Amino acid sequence: MRTANRRVLLARVPTGLPTPADFKLDTAPIPEPLEGEFLCRTLWLSLDPYYRNVMKGHPLYGEVLRPGEVMIGETVAQVVVSRLAGYAPGDYIVGRNGWQEFALSKGEGVCKLPQEDLPLSAWLGVLGMPGLTGYAGMLELGGPEPGETVVVSAATGPVGSTAGQVARLAGARVIGIAGSAEKCDYAVHELGYAACINYRAQDLRDALEKACPDRIHVYFDNVGGETLNAVFTRLARGARIILCGMIGAYSMETPPAGPWLGPVVAARAHLQGLVVYDHLHRQSEQVRAVSAWIRAGHFKWKEDVSVGLERAPEAFCRLMRGENFGKALVRIDPG
Amino acid sequence: MRTANRRVLLARVPTGLPTPADFKLDTAPIPEPLEGEFLCRTLWLSLDPYYRNVMKGHPLYGEVLRPGEVMIGETVAQVVVSRLAGYAPGDYIVGRNGWQEFALSKGEGVCKLPQEDLPLSAWLGVLGMPGLTGYAGMLELGGPEPGETVVVSAATGPVGSTAGQVARLAGARVIGIAGSAEKCDYAVHELGYAACINYRAQDLRDALEKACPDRIHVYFDNVGGETLNAVFTRLARGARIILCGMIGAYSMETPPAGPWLGPVVAARAHLQGLVVYDHLHRQSEQVRAVSAWIRAGHFKWKEDVSVGLERAPEAFCRLMRGENFGKALVRIDPG
Repeated sequence: MRTANRRVLLARVPTGLPTPADFKLDTAPIPEPLEGEFLCRTLWLSLDPYYRNVMKGHPLYGEVLRPGEVMIGETVAQVVVSRLAGYAPGDYIVGRNGWQEFALSKGEGVCKLPQEDLPLSAWLGVLGMPGLTGYAGMLELGGPEPGETVVVSAATGPVGSTAGQVARLAGARVIGIAGSAEKCDYAVHELGYAACINYRAQDLRDALEKACPDRIHVYFDNVGGETLNAVFTRLARGARIILCGMIGAYSMETPPAGPWLGPVVAARAHLQGLVVYDHLHRQSEQVRAVSAWIRAGHFKWKEDVSVGLERAPEAFCRLMRGENFGKALVRIDPG
Repeated sequence: MRTANRRVLLARVPTGLPTPADFKLDTAPIPEPLEGEFLCRTLWLSLDPYYRNVMKGHPLYGEVLRPGEVMIGETVAQVVVSRLAGYAPGDYIVGRNGWQEFALSKGEGVCKLPQEDLPLSAWLGVLGMPGLTGYAGMLELGGPEPGETVVVSAATGPVGSTAGQVARLAGARVIGIAGSAEKCDYAVHELGYAACINYRAQDLRDALEKACPDRIHVYFDNVGGETLNAVFTRLARGARIILCGMIGAYSMETPPAGPWLGPVVAARAHLQGLVVYDHLHRQSEQVRAVSAWIRAGHFKWKEDVSVGLERAPEAFCRLMRGENFGKALVRIDPG
């Protein structure tokens, strides 16, 4: 039986894009559960861009991450020892173990997973918070109508690919924006987008003009910055813009300037900020709908898997540089 | 009987803030109406910031203003000679004579004014398009609730003072932003705002923090730029922001950067572009409501009047520099 719990600590607050030197691998004894607790082993660690904001000291759930502490993160885990009613060894759960191989839990904020055909890792992506973000954001704030043109940035990531496929299934014509030819190819051939623009290889404004002859009715924004400025030049009257992520800014010390809003006035466009926690009431509907689409072959997703907790720092840094392709995950193999 | 029609032409497209040298005083014969036309004499010329955009060559009603042509502008005029049924000498009308003392009209886009107690000039301000902008924008897009905090920039102008007073009459607590102590004093003592911030004398972020302890529920934006950035730091959850005017940008050659939108996401705020022509169906309601408030003493406005057409260029330049106080108007006295 293993007695050492490997963990990754935040070593220091990064400056700019994070590097592996901002993290520190560490070992502690595996803790023992008290009455009312269970011990669980991490199987999958999710890597999400918002961690970068938490690393700056921005609070999450009212808690603040400080150097020397275990990195935060969402995980799929399996119960090992339980002294908490309702949790038995072998149960799979989604929770927030953070970047460590073992963790104790009192069951707070933990969700037991059904035993079913879908892979466990999906609960950190398209069936989890990123999926809910794309699903509820697109349906509640975007409201795509059949025949409308919907543009999605970070189009092959878990949020973007959910938002885009939900819009496509609602009858809209979906145009993706992504950072490589490979991603764009996947977006068109697997996700069913009408087109996908490689912003690293094409002039985004020209490409949007060509790809959106009827202009843009809904834009799901995962990146902010210059991409927003480009989309603003092609807005349809009454366009809906969902402001979700601004990954480029998370690694900046001071907030960058935003887009010039003149075209928003001309288009009478609506911009709205999206925070997924406002939409938790739609989570069971999302899981039901997306699971059914997956089983019917209408909904695809892609994962970018690193193996071993010690790979998490480099994998997270790749994610923040936009070099991943698909949902960034770390698989923690039993030692 | 006068035979000369004095006019002001656009001499050249201004660079940056306009100067009087961008205009040219000119004289032409007073035209004679054909069958189906009437001749009218301009009494009041409205000066509005959006003219600056038209001077750049931006189309208005599908028409474009070019150097050498008579400056565009909304006017109150009186019919002198009529060969058009429904219009008789002495009738007062609102139309678009532009910057000239006499003009012909076929009655298109012209509105006859009732003979009543309210001053004719009000039809270019609080009872006209600026008033409708503030009225419909605040009620349709802002939706202020009793007790909410509403912030209005350019708070003593015709749009801002209408938006602010409409919000106050709806039960909201109104905070103005204006550019002089005199304007702020007027906003509090005449317009009934709870407070007014002189952005030229105070740090806007600090002042908003003090004036808006419950944060900002509705912001009616008439200026854009750094003011938006400051307001964004104090948004209440679900705030509504009406993007109406961006006067600072009208005189720029290239659009400035916009505000950093991160706080919009955090606040789940709604931003919406406002164009008054979408709200013409509420015009008769606006005129009825505002007229009644004026008569009951609940609604005030202020005018910044220059006398004589030859003063129009300098008055317009003052407006674009933010040096006017109240609705900018030119009174054209009969020669």
